[in-house]
Amino acid sequence: MQITSEIIGYVAATLTTSSFLPQAILTIKTRDTEGLSLSMYSIFTAGVLCWLIYGIFISDKAIIFANSITFLLAASILFVKIYNILTKGN
Amino acid sequence: MQITSEIIGYVAATLTTSSFLPQAILTIKTRDTEGLSLSMYSIFTAGVLCWLIYGIFISDKAIIFANSITFLLAASILFVKIYNILTKGN
Repeated sequence: MQITSEIIGYVAATLTTSSFLPQAILTIKTRDTEGLSLSMYSIFTAGVLCWLIYGIFISDKAIIFANSITFLLAASILFVKIYNILTKGN
Repeated sequence: MQITSEIIGYVAATLTTSSFLPQAILTIKTRDTEGLSLSMYSIFTAGVLCWLIYGIFISDKAIIFANSITFLLAASILFVKIYNILTKGN
């Protein structure tokens, strides 16, 4: 039962993180963030950070694994977005 | 400690679910899914479903709460996307 739930946790982590990868790669590569919403990415990044803290609190490896990677990706996108707003206005 | 982690869990759940809401509302309202990736939404929806199953396995209310709402939203978007592909080809 515990192994089954751990496997499901890691499958979940891999799937949701993978689904976020194409956007992250595209944004980091092109630096084009015009089509991305600042408020949406700010809320999402803060949420992922909270999930990461939550995972550390309850010592859940799957949650820590998924959200540390997603946080790095989301924070990178947010950083490029804020940089673009400050330098180019979008 | 337990109450603190529960609060962080619900804050995380509210933030990540909220960040997904504008896309869901826009898609359900306009039925326009041309700009959305079928593979990305399929992987994301499957991932959220796995998180929901994981939450049920480990009896974690914040995970169940966040992922049941996000699953309904993501599945609705995926449903509209598949319907559009079958009827209009995109």
